[in-house]
Amino acid sequence: MSKKSMKQGQAPGTVMFTGEQKMESSILSLISYTPEVFNETTDLELERLSTFASDKTSWLNLDGVHDTSLIEHLGRHFNLHPLTLEDIASTQQRPKIEFFDDYVYVVLRMLHLSDKGTLQNEQISIILGKHFVLTLQEIPGDLFEPVRKRLRTNKGRIRKLGADYLFYALIDAIVDAYFIVLESYGERIEALEDQILHYDKQVIEQLSSLKRETLLLRKTIWPLRELLSSLHREESPLMSNEVLTFFRDVQDHSIQVIDTIEIFRELLSSIHDVHLSNMSYRMNEVMKVLTIISTIFIPLSFLVGVYGMNFKVMPELEWQYGYFGVWGIILFVAISMVFYFRRKKWF
Amino acid sequence: MSKKSMKQGQAPGTVMFTGEQKMESSILSLISYTPEVFNETTDLELERLSTFASDKTSWLNLDGVHDTSLIEHLGRHFNLHPLTLEDIASTQQRPKIEFFDDYVYVVLRMLHLSDKGTLQNEQISIILGKHFVLTLQEIPGDLFEPVRKRLRTNKGRIRKLGADYLFYALIDAIVDAYFIVLESYGERIEALEDQILHYDKQVIEQLSSLKRETLLLRKTIWPLRELLSSLHREESPLMSNEVLTFFRDVQDHSIQVIDTIEIFRELLSSIHDVHLSNMSYRMNEVMKVLTIISTIFIPLSFLVGVYGMNFKVMPELEWQYGYFGVWGIILFVAISMVFYFRRKKWF
Amino acid sequence: MSKKSMKQGQAPGTVMFTGEQKMESSILSLISYTPEVFNETTDLELERLSTFASDKTSWLNLDGVHDTSLIEHLGRHFNLHPLTLEDIASTQQRPKIEFFDDYVYVVLRMLHLSDKGTLQNEQISIILGKHFVLTLQEIPGDLFEPVRKRLRTNKGRIRKLGADYLFYALIDAIVDAYFIVLESYGERIEALEDQILHYDKQVIEQLSSLKRETLLLRKTIWPLRELLSSLHREESPLMSNEVLTFFRDVQDHSIQVIDTIEIFRELLSSIHDVHLSNMSYRMNEVMKVLTIISTIFIPLSFLVGVYGMNFKVMPELEWQYGYFGVWGIILFVAISMVFYFRRKKWF
Amino acid sequence: MSKKSMKQGQAPGTVMFTGEQKMESSILSLISYTPEVFNETTDLELERLSTFASDKTSWLNLDGVHDTSLIEHLGRHFNLHPLTLEDIASTQQRPKIEFFDDYVYVVLRMLHLSDKGTLQNEQISIILGKHFVLTLQEIPGDLFEPVRKRLRTNKGRIRKLGADYLFYALIDAIVDAYFIVLESYGERIEALEDQILHYDKQVIEQLSSLKRETLLLRKTIWPLRELLSSLHREESPLMSNEVLTFFRDVQDHSIQVIDTIEIFRELLSSIHDVHLSNMSYRMNEVMKVLTIISTIFIPLSFLVGVYGMNFKVMPELEWQYGYFGVWGIILFVAISMVFYFRRKKWF
Amino acid sequence: MSKKSMKQGQAPGTVMFTGEQKMESSILSLISYTPEVFNETTDLELERLSTFASDKTSWLNLDGVHDTSLIEHLGRHFNLHPLTLEDIASTQQRPKIEFFDDYVYVVLRMLHLSDKGTLQNEQISIILGKHFVLTLQEIPGDLFEPVRKRLRTNKGRIRKLGADYLFYALIDAIVDAYFIVLESYGERIEALEDQILHYDKQVIEQLSSLKRETLLLRKTIWPLRELLSSLHREESPLMSNEVLTFFRDVQDHSIQVIDTIEIFRELLSSIHDVHLSNMSYRMNEVMKVLTIISTIFIPLSFLVGVYGMNFKVMPELEWQYGYFGVWGIILFVAISMVFYFRRKKWF
Repeated sequence: MSKKSMKQGQAPGTVMFTGEQKMESSILSLISYTPEVFNETTDLELERLSTFASDKTSWLNLDGVHDTSLIEHLGRHFNLHPLTLEDIASTQQRPKIEFFDDYVYVVLRMLHLSDKGTLQNEQISIILGKHFVLTLQEIPGDLFEPVRKRLRTNKGRIRKLGADYLFYALIDAIVDAYFIVLESYGERIEALEDQILHYDKQVIEQLSSLKRETLLLRKTIWPLRELLSSLHREESPLMSNEVLTFFRDVQDHSIQVIDTIEIFRELLSSIHDVHLSNMSYRMNEVMKVLTIISTIFIPLSFLVGVYGMNFKVMPELEWQYGYFGVWGIILFVAISMVFYFRRKKWF
Repeated sequence: MSKKSMKQGQAPGTVMFTGEQKMESSILSLISYTPEVFNETTDLELERLSTFASDKTSWLNLDGVHDTSLIEHLGRHFNLHPLTLEDIASTQQRPKIEFFDDYVYVVLRMLHLSDKGTLQNEQISIILGKHFVLTLQEIPGDLFEPVRKRLRTNKGRIRKLGADYLFYALIDAIVDAYFIVLESYGERIEALEDQILHYDKQVIEQLSSLKRETLLLRKTIWPLRELLSSLHREESPLMSNEVLTFFRDVQDHSIQVIDTIEIFRELLSSIHDVHLSNMSYRMNEVMKVLTIISTIFIPLSFLVGVYGMNFKVMPELEWQYGYFGVWGIILFVAISMVFYFRRKKWF
Repeated sequence: MSKKSMKQGQAPGTVMFTGEQKMESSILSLISYTPEVFNETTDLELERLSTFASDKTSWLNLDGVHDTSLIEHLGRHFNLHPLTLEDIASTQQRPKIEFFDDYVYVVLRMLHLSDKGTLQNEQISIILGKHFVLTLQEIPGDLFEPVRKRLRTNKGRIRKLGADYLFYALIDAIVDAYFIVLESYGERIEALEDQILHYDKQVIEQLSSLKRETLLLRKTIWPLRELLSSLHREESPLMSNEVLTFFRDVQDHSIQVIDTIEIFRELLSSIHDVHLSNMSYRMNEVMKVLTIISTIFIPLSFLVGVYGMNFKVMPELEWQYGYFGVWGIILFVAISMVFYFRRKKWF
Repeated sequence: MSKKSMKQGQAPGTVMFTGEQKMESSILSLISYTPEVFNETTDLELERLSTFASDKTSWLNLDGVHDTSLIEHLGRHFNLHPLTLEDIASTQQRPKIEFFDDYVYVVLRMLHLSDKGTLQNEQISIILGKHFVLTLQEIPGDLFEPVRKRLRTNKGRIRKLGADYLFYALIDAIVDAYFIVLESYGERIEALEDQILHYDKQVIEQLSSLKRETLLLRKTIWPLRELLSSLHREESPLMSNEVLTFFRDVQDHSIQVIDTIEIFRELLSSIHDVHLSNMSYRMNEVMKVLTIISTIFIPLSFLVGVYGMNFKVMPELEWQYGYFGVWGIILFVAISMVFYFRRKKWF
Repeated sequence: MSKKSMKQGQAPGTVMFTGEQKMESSILSLISYTPEVFNETTDLELERLSTFASDKTSWLNLDGVHDTSLIEHLGRHFNLHPLTLEDIASTQQRPKIEFFDDYVYVVLRMLHLSDKGTLQNEQISIILGKHFVLTLQEIPGDLFEPVRKRLRTNKGRIRKLGADYLFYALIDAIVDAYFIVLESYGERIEALEDQILHYDKQVIEQLSSLKRETLLLRKTIWPLRELLSSLHREESPLMSNEVLTFFRDVQDHSIQVIDTIEIFRELLSSIHDVHLSNMSYRMNEVMKVLTIISTIFIPLSFLVGVYGMNFKVMPELEWQYGYFGVWGIILFVAISMVFYFRRKKWF
C-alpha cells in the first residue's frame, strides 16, 4: 500500500501507477469478429489503433498498466472519464462497477494459483462499450484462453451475440476461477484438520495464516455480489436482456463462492476451538500424571523419612518386624491411592 | 467439488455432469391425470415422449442426470433455457428459483436418512410448465411416494387442482422431510449432552462434527426462505392464488426448520461452553488434590529430614520423648493444615 | 417433535393432531353478549351450535384440540380453510397471523407458571370473524378469566366494542402473562448470580439450562413482533381503527418482552464470564499455595538431606555448633523466601 | 418489575400506578408565557386548572404520578386517550413516541447522578398539545431548571417560539444530561483500566457490574434514535419546520450517546480480555517458579538420599573425598539447570 | 469530554467553545480565483471581509475556533444557522453533513501523524455556499497545501470548475490522508505480529491499545459512508452533476478505508487468539518439564528413603550387593520412565 501514500496531494483524476511494476513494456492485442469473420492481432502498435467499426465486435486487451501515457492515449481514444483512467492505473482497487453514458466500467480481481501453489492476485479492468470490450491487466497471462478458443473455433453462441456477451463471458471466466482457488483452500483446511490431532505449535500459526487469507479473499470477493446485482438494477442500454439472463448465473456462482468462504471461516474457527480444547485436554492429562505420582509417593517419602530419624528412643526400630510392617503400610497406602484414583476415573 | 474445476473454461450453458455418477442408466417415468383419469408409465422410452395434451396434467420424472444428451433432448422438447439445462446437470447447485417466460425452475436439495442413519443429500430440479411438472433426480428412490399414492387413490384435492398444486405437493414433501432429519440431529445433540458429563476426548470431536454438519445443513436450507418468498413476490402466471395460499404453509415450515437449525447451533455452542467449563473444573479438582497432599507432606518430610541428620551434637535426639514430640508436631501440623483447607472449602 | 414425523406423507390440509393428548374429551363453551345482554353456556353440545346472530358478539371456546372430527366440524361451520384446521391441530406451530377473506387467524403460545413453578407452554389458536371470536386451546384452564369477569360485570368498554376488541383483549391477556414468566426468570438469574461466588459445579449446569430456556422463550416470543406489526400493515376490514390503537399498546409490550429476554441472555453470558474468571482465579490461588510451600520446603529438604548422608568424612558433622548452624541457614532461607513472595504480593 | 404482575388481568386502559411511590402527594405547577408576559404558579390547586388560552403558551408540570385519580382528572381535562393515561402511571415504560390527533405523547427516561454518584433513573412523560406542554414526573427535582431560567429571563428565542420549541427544549435538556452520565461511566472505566494491572478479584466483579449497567443504559437510550427519527417521518401538524431543524440536533446527540455506549461496551470487553490474559500470564509466572525450584532440587534431594542409605557395603562412603565429590555433583547439576532455564528464557 | 458537561443547561444554538484551546488567536486567510485570476490574502482582518463577488470563487479559511465572537460574526456575515455555529465551536462532533437552503455544512475529522508518529485528530468544518467555501479548523497547519498549490499553479481542472469542485478537492484531501494513517497502523500491527513469538507481557497491552485506537478510528470514519451517500441522495442545487461524479470516487475510497479498518480489527483479534494459544502452549511446556522431573525423581527419592531407615532388622542392608541392586532398580525405573514419556511424545 506504500505507493498509495505517494499519491496523496495529487489532483483527482491524475493517472498514476500505484502498484509494483511486473513487466517491462505493455502489450496491446486485438480480436475482432462477426459471426462469419475472425481477426486476431497480437502486439498491436498504438498508432494503428483506429476507431472500431460498428459492424464488428472488437476486444482490445492491454497487458501492463504501468505505462500511464499509453493509458491516457487509450482514454482519449475511447473517450473515458479521467477517474476511470486513474482507477485503471491504481492496482489496489476494490471490485466495483460504474455506469457511464457510453460505457460500463468494471474492476475485478483475477485470482489464480501459480504452478507452485501460491495465490496470484491481479487487478483487471473491463470496459464494455457499444461495439467493443477493453480489458486491462497487470501482467500477461490470463484466464481468458478458453474464451479466445471459443471465439476462434466459433463454438457455441459467442460470436453470434455482441460485445455484451463477450463482457459476460470474461467475467464468467474470472468467477469460475474462484472455485479452483477455493478448492485449494478447502484442501489446506482439511490438511490442517488432520494435523490438530498432533500436538504442534505450528497448528496455530497455520490456522492464523489461513484465517488471514480467507479474510483477504472475502474482502476481494464480497463486493462482487453488489456489483452483479447493480447490473440488473441499473439497466444499462449496452446490456441486452438476453445477456442479463446469463449474468444471473454468474450471480448465483458468486453467492456460492461467498457462502463457501463463510463456511471456511466457520470451519477455521471450529478448528481453533478443537485445537484449544485439545491443548486443555493435554494439560489435564499432564497434570493428572503429576498429581497421581506425587500423591502416592510424597506421603510415602514422609513415612520412610520418619524411620530415618536418629532419635535415641524410637521403639519401632527395635521391633522384629518393624521394617516389614512399614512395607505393609506402604503397600496399603499405595494400593488405596490407586483404587481411589481409579474410582475417580483418573486413569 | 473437484468436478467443478473441470468445468472451468467451458462455454456457459454447456450441459456437463459435474457430480459423482450414482446409477447406470437414466430412467424416465410419466404420470398423467385428470380428476377422472389416471395413467402411469414407468421406464418410458424417450422416443415415445410426445407433447403433453393440455387437458391432462403430466408429471415426468427422470432418475439420473448424468446422461447429458438425454437432458439436452428434454431441453429441446420442453423448450428450456441452456442455463437451466446446465444447472440440472451440475449437482452442486445452491437451492434457487428462476422464473422464465413459460416455466418456473426450482432447484432443491432432498435430504433423507439412509437406513444406517447417514444423511443422504441429493439435488432435485423441479420444473413447472403450463400443464406439466418435470422432476429430475440424481438417483432413483425419492420422497414422493406418498404424493404418487394420493394421485393414484385420488385422495384429497390433488387431482382436482392442476400442475401448480402438484408442484406445491412435491416441494411440501421435500420440506416435510427436513423435519425428520432435524429430529435425528436433535437426538444426537441430546446424546452429546449426556456425554459431556463423562470426561472424554471424543466429546470435542463429536461436537465439532455436529457443528460442521449443522453448518452445512444451514447452507442447504437457508436459501429456501428467500426462494419461497420470491414465489409470492414474482407472481408467475403459472401459479394460481389458491395454490399460493398453500405455499404460505411451506414457507412457515421452512422458517421453522431454519429456526430449529439456529437453535441447534446455539445449543451446540452452549454444550461447548459447558464442556470447557467442565474441563476447567476437573483441572481445578486435580490441582487441589495435588496441592493439599503436597502442602501437608512436604513440610513434614522436611521435619523428619532434620532429625535424620547425622550431626554429632543434636540435643533433641538424646531426649527421652524427642521422637514422640516430633510425632506430636507432625500431627499438629497435619491437622492444622486440614482445618485450614476445610475453612477454605477446598474439600 | 416425534409426532411431526408421522405427518410426513400426509396430504397438505389433513387435520391431524400432532401433540401429546393432555385431556380426555374436548369441551365447548360459548359466551355471547351485547352491551345490555350477557349469556354464558359451558359444556355446549356441538349440535346446538347455530350460526351466530350478527346483533350479538359471540365467543366460542374449545378446550382440547385432539378431536380432529370436532375441529373439522367447526371448520365447516365457520367456513375455515383446510390449512387453518391443520394448523389448529398441529400443536408445534410458530406464532403467526394469517389474513383470510372473512377471518383472521392467529396462533400464539400461552405461557404460564404452574403452581410448582415449572413453565407451561400451550398453543392457542384465535380466530376473529365478523361477529365472533373462536379460541382453541390444548387443555382447560387459561389466562382469560379476567376477560370473562370484565364481560360478566360489564366493566370498562369491553361489551360496548365488538368482536375485534375481544380479540385484542385476549391477545393482551396472553402478552401480559409473559411478564409474569419473565419475572420468575429474572429471579432465577439473580439467584444464580449470588451462587457463582460459591465455587460450585452446578453453576455451569444451571447457567446452561437457563440459557437454553431463554433461547426457547425467545423462539416463542420473537415472531410476535412481526405478527403484531403485520396487523397494522395488512389493514383487515375486520379490525376497526379504534382497536388498532389498542394493539399498538400490545406491540409496545411485546417489544419490552423481547428486550428483556435479550438482556437476560446478555446477563447470562456475563455471569458465564464471571464464573470462568472466578475459576481461573481460584486456580491461581491454589497454584500459589502449592508454589509457596514447595519453593520454601523443597530446598530445605535437600539441605537436611545433605547432612543425613553417611559419608565417613563429613567435617561439618563434627562441628560443635553444626546442627545449630544448619537451623540458622534453614531459618534464613525460609524467611528470605517469605519476604520474596511478600514483595511479589503472592500473599 | 413486581408491580407489573399485579396489573395482569386488568382491563387495558386502566390507570394503575405500577412503580414505587417516591413522594407523598403530587404537586402541580404552571408556567404560562408570551414573548412579553411570564406567569409562574407553583403548587397549583387542581380546581383552578382552566382551559389554556390560545394566546399564551402554557407548561403544566406534575411531580408524582402515583395519584391515579389526579391523572384521570388531567386526562379528561386535556382529552387524553386512556392508553396514554395508563402509560403515564406505569413507570417501567420503554422510551417511545405516539402521535394522536391533537397531541403528541413522549415517554423518556431522565438519568442523573445523585450527589453520592449513584444513577437516578426516572420516567418522564411529555405531552405536546396545541398551546401547551404537559410534563409528568415521578419525583420533584428535574433537569429543567435551566429551561425555566431561560423562560423567566426571556433569554434567547425560547419565549418567541411556541409550545413545540418548549417541547424541544425539554427533550434537549434530557438528552444533554446523558452526556454527564456517560462521562461518569467513562471515568469509572478508566479507573478500572488502571486497576487491572493489580491482580485483584474485584476487577471481574466491577467489570461485570459495569457491563450490566451499560447494558441497561443502552436499553434505556437505544429507542431514542427511532423515536426522534419518527418525529421527522410522521410530520405532526403540532411541530413547525423550524423546530424540526432543532430536533435534528438532538438526533445527532442521541446518535453520539449511543455510539459512546457501544464504545464503552467494546472497551469493557477489551478490558476483560486483558484481565484474562493477565491472569494467564500470572499463572505462567507462578508455574515457572515452581518448576524451576522443583526441577533443580528434586533430583538433588534424590542424590543426597542415595548416600543416606544404610547399606553395609557402599564403597563411596569410605572414600576420602566422597562427600566433597557429592557437593561437586550437586553444584554442577544446579548450575547446569540454571543455564538451561536461562537459555529457555524462563528467568 | 469534560467541557461537554459545562454546556449542559445552555440554550440550544449557544455558540460555546467546548474543546481544548490549542492556539492563541484565530487567523483568517482568503483565497479567491477565476480561471484567469488568483488572489491570496493571509492574516485577513475581520473588518475587511466583504461579501464575496459572484464572479469569483472564494475560499475563506479560519485557524482557531475558540473565538466565539469571531464565529458569530462570520455566522451573521454568511447567514449561517445558530446550530451550525454551535457545531463549529463544539470540537467533539461526529462527522456529519447538513443541507441548508443556501449552504451545505460538513463536519469531518482531519487525521494526520505528527512528526513523532502520534495521531493528531482535529475537527474541521467545511461550508459550501453559492460562490464560496468556508473552512474552520482548530489549529493552523492542515492537509490542504497540495490543493493550494494546484490553485496557485492553475494545474488541472481546479480553477476551471467552481466552489463545489473546491469543496470536493478539500474532502478528497482529508480522505486521502486516512490512507497514510492506516498504513502506519498496518505497520504497527505487523510489528506486533512479530512480537507475539517472544513471550512478553507487553504484547497484550499493545494489542489492547491498538484495538482501542482502531475502535476510535472506526468511530471517526464510519459516519463518512453515510455522509457521502447522502450527498448523492439529497441533490443539493449547490452541487453540479460533474462534481458528484468525483464524489463517487471519494465514496469508493471511504469504503476502502472502512474495509481496511475492519480487516485490522479482525487481524488484531486473530493476533489475540495466537497470543493466548502461545501462552497456553508455553504453560503446557512448563508443566511437562515439571511433571517429567517429578515423576522420575519422586519415586526414586522414596526408594532411597526406604534404605535410609534405621530399623534394626532390615535384611537387604546386609546383602553384599544390596547397594548396587538399588542402583539397578533406580536406573531401570528412570529409563522406563524416559521411554514412557518418549512414547507419549512429551519430549
